[in-house]
Amino acid sequence: MLSIVIKPNTYQDSVSLMMLSSQLSGLPEVDRVSIMMGTPANKDIFADTGFGSPDLEPAGPTDMVIALESADPSAVALIEEKVAEFIKNQASRSAAATYPRVRSLERALAAEPDANLALVSIPGEQAAPEIERLIDKGLHVFVFSDNIPVDDEVRLKSKARDKGLLVMGPDCGTGSLGGLPLAFTNVVNPGPIGIVGASGTGTQEVMVQIDKAGGGVSQAIGLGGRDLSEKVGAITCLQALRALDADPATRVIVLVSKPPAPSVRARVLEVCQELATPVVAILLGERPETEQDGNIRFAGTLEEAARLAVSVAGPVGEAPAAFAAGQRTIRGLFCGGTLASEAAILIARALDVPTDADHHAGFMLHHDGHTVIDLGDDMYTQGRPHPMIDPSLRAHMIRDAFDDPELAVLLLDVVTGFGSHADPAGAIAPALVEGQEAARAAGREVVVIASVCGTDKDPQPLDEQVRILEDAGVVVLDSNAAAVRHALAVLEGIGASRTAQEVPEATRRLVSETPQVVNVGLPAFADPIQQYGGRVVQYTWSPLAGGNRRLQRILAALT
Amino acid sequence: MLSIVIKPNTYQDSVSLMMLSSQLSGLPEVDRVSIMMGTPANKDIFADTGFGSPDLEPAGPTDMVIALESADPSAVALIEEKVAEFIKNQASRSAAATYPRVRSLERALAAEPDANLALVSIPGEQAAPEIERLIDKGLHVFVFSDNIPVDDEVRLKSKARDKGLLVMGPDCGTGSLGGLPLAFTNVVNPGPIGIVGASGTGTQEVMVQIDKAGGGVSQAIGLGGRDLSEKVGAITCLQALRALDADPATRVIVLVSKPPAPSVRARVLEVCQELATPVVAILLGERPETEQDGNIRFAGTLEEAARLAVSVAGPVGEAPAAFAAGQRTIRGLFCGGTLASEAAILIARALDVPTDADHHAGFMLHHDGHTVIDLGDDMYTQGRPHPMIDPSLRAHMIRDAFDDPELAVLLLDVVTGFGSHADPAGAIAPALVEGQEAARAAGREVVVIASVCGTDKDPQPLDEQVRILEDAGVVVLDSNAAAVRHALAVLEGIGASRTAQEVPEATRRLVSETPQVVNVGLPAFADPIQQYGGRVVQYTWSPLAGGNRRLQRILAALT
Repeated sequence: MLSIVIKPNTYQDSVSLMMLSSQLSGLPEVDRVSIMMGTPANKDIFADTGFGSPDLEPAGPTDMVIALESADPSAVALIEEKVAEFIKNQASRSAAATYPRVRSLERALAAEPDANLALVSIPGEQAAPEIERLIDKGLHVFVFSDNIPVDDEVRLKSKARDKGLLVMGPDCGTGSLGGLPLAFTNVVNPGPIGIVGASGTGTQEVMVQIDKAGGGVSQAIGLGGRDLSEKVGAITCLQALRALDADPATRVIVLVSKPPAPSVRARVLEVCQELATPVVAILLGERPETEQDGNIRFAGTLEEAARLAVSVAGPVGEAPAAFAAGQRTIRGLFCGGTLASEAAILIARALDVPTDADHHAGFMLHHDGHTVIDLGDDMYTQGRPHPMIDPSLRAHMIRDAFDDPELAVLLLDVVTGFGSHADPAGAIAPALVEGQEAARAAGREVVVIASVCGTDKDPQPLDEQVRILEDAGVVVLDSNAAAVRHALAVLEGIGASRTAQEVPEATRRLVSETPQVVNVGLPAFADPIQQYGGRVVQYTWSPLAGGNRRLQRILAALT
Repeated sequence: MLSIVIKPNTYQDSVSLMMLSSQLSGLPEVDRVSIMMGTPANKDIFADTGFGSPDLEPAGPTDMVIALESADPSAVALIEEKVAEFIKNQASRSAAATYPRVRSLERALAAEPDANLALVSIPGEQAAPEIERLIDKGLHVFVFSDNIPVDDEVRLKSKARDKGLLVMGPDCGTGSLGGLPLAFTNVVNPGPIGIVGASGTGTQEVMVQIDKAGGGVSQAIGLGGRDLSEKVGAITCLQALRALDADPATRVIVLVSKPPAPSVRARVLEVCQELATPVVAILLGERPETEQDGNIRFAGTLEEAARLAVSVAGPVGEAPAAFAAGQRTIRGLFCGGTLASEAAILIARALDVPTDADHHAGFMLHHDGHTVIDLGDDMYTQGRPHPMIDPSLRAHMIRDAFDDPELAVLLLDVVTGFGSHADPAGAIAPALVEGQEAARAAGREVVVIASVCGTDKDPQPLDEQVRILEDAGVVVLDSNAAAVRHALAVLEGIGASRTAQEVPEATRRLVSETPQVVNVGLPAFADPIQQYGGRVVQYTWSPLAGGNRRLQRILAALT
């Protein structure tokens, strides 16, 4: 038997009601139950899903509608009781939060006059006028809502752009600005990688894999799925790229997208090339034809994009390099022959020069002052043990390297395990500290980058070796390939004297300060913002004029 | 002032002496000191490094020579005291070990009659006859020694091959057989990945990165740096590939090498194609032209080779798939749209079919029974929350999937973070357990593979979500791309009815049993073998006939 219960003027957001419907469907007294607000669209869904009934007729958009299928006559009372309990819980849950809760935009802005970001999760059919009001008030808008017509998207984004404001979305699932989690998002370490993402879980996977690889995220800016279409023309994408380029916390930008429309693709990559910040692009479904083209590195999977970004940006906590005039070369002093070889190959490829074919004196690469030396070469092991056993010669050469005024980057391997020295990191640490002190006294600083070829089960445990190196000022990457890639990115940064273009003041503020947020819609989105130290006001939206579109238009014309 | 002290008939291995020289060089009383055995080659080194003196003349190969440069007259006595202390410590260190210590091969084999592997680290100039004796006795030989003429290498390897024995090396730095660490090696988790390596630290880096990525190593077989040359013709490499192919513990083989000589390269890759076990090849310096060619996947860096191998082999602890007749398809049921898209793209590429362009009903791939569905598609979210919030619909679809007799692999994502369900893994676990039980009752087993898009800082901590999935029988990979690649490798395994070729009994034993080892030379190599549960006898080698080559040849002719 089908029963319809209408609870007049009881607004709850649709996600909460769907969750409640899901829960109550599990009760033994219930065959099926669906609870929604009585909007025209929802009434259609009731009809389409077998809950059609003339009793639905009087329900309006601000009325809650319970549609119940059950053979048990006690079921209606039970469900009404559960719904009342749910509404009471929702109210007390809100009472626990300490941020202000208001029912109008004006009151929200009175409570947070410096708010610069709105998070909008109200029904999409009614969201456009609300977003426009927010833009008019000077707020960036993160639009979680979907079902917003594309023409509205173009109009709103264009209007926002003229004011230096970003419209992230619609249908934007994920974001992170100034360390605040927005909507669906993972908690990751803060760090130097900014993300521009046209897809929700794509951005989430990149964030997660960056975190797993020892990196961290500065900002993650969502675009919505249509921003890179011909029609929208990447309005928000281009704004976001330039915003991150101007963000001092961002040292690498990852662009996550399905392949954009061809004309849009060209424009987006053109802007990527102009940025002062290196870009890693993952255009899902495009097989990269080249590893790197100018300022852009291409990845084939979301995981690869994340790992590439970490190797370019370096791990969390690394200070940006500041070289003196004349510092320009890289020197690799390796004890592992194959590690030296891999480094020489990757560096030679990036600099477009040959490796050293003869390997004379252990040189694996020797070009224009750039060198990679295998200290396991016969020349260095005549009458002395291999440098993996006896690090003393390498320690001397490390110390000497700092006296070279052209040296910018010193690249090392540390190999642990049975057979190796009992403390290979400790054996070179004094030379590193002493060398850096001498370089500093001469007004220079050398960036030292290493990887440890070892595990936590080795006789010299990995984390201890890493700590010793880090204490000696070394930037430690997760693998030899990552260390080499990072060294190359640091080297590339020396030549690049480009500075980021100016961005409008409102754009600059978005990436340089912790945003102050008006949360319009789902209360669940406000809590994590406060939990992570953000200022937020909850604006519990309900449809204007009881959801009557004609009345809404008249009201809008009058205000 | 230069002083020369000769200690007659005091043999110590060269590495220990070089370490000792290093240590004593640090004493304030000492300017420079070098301690070596009095071989003709070492006497040349003394002369070349400024320790030349007529006093060296009488020293023979079994005499220890101390060459000391010092202005302090007390230094000679001090050094002699330190050397005596060192020799005493070496002796007591050996006394602590519980394995037998002998001074001839005959006694070594009497102590360990079932020994099948020798680890040789004696001076290379004198190693060839010793290696030949070991081969004649039926032992595989791991040759750490270098400076062995290439003609000897070819002769010894050919002779060994005829008996089903492997000569690993010369100049073989790294190995792991049956879980025993050989020479320079890292301690990694045991697992399904076998390594064939023509380079020491290359093999070490691959082992380490496999371990970091959650994988494990069955065996690591070193070849030495010349095995893939024209002259040697990859004798050991081909033996090692076939040995690992016959090893039940090895499910993926990684081949680590510099690019081999062209004719050798062709032969090696031909054999790789014939194997029943998939191969990941890293030919350092060759930029891979294709991701996969038949049985071989190509990697561009050592790290990539390791990660590729782990995604193909799966993590440590996974049981090999055993499908019933008729099981042949893959089904991806995703809640993340971009994760579904990435999966569809990688699967379509591997199967050489198109993705589903229309995305009708959330289908991202729909070909010949293989499907990838995005359950966040509008079709599935009409009137119900997104599957990241409400997993109930996906749970139903997961449960139903197990009833499909064609289904071989079920591929899933689990997305955590703010906004997502409070326990997304727990919400689908019962459906997974129930489904697998139903499949088992029907005589089938479905391989379920997932990745968790989440971090340890998420409200639903990563390790707990992984544990819940693993408890429900799911194989969990580190990223979506890795999960998809593993799913494809499992699927690929279904078609492959190839079985490994027969290998000689001695070869089979090498990879199927824990080796029993005779350690010829450096005592330091015996300890880790015993520590990891291996049977080992220390054969403390000293040069035959006091190192007199002519006398040695006569003795060899007589025996």
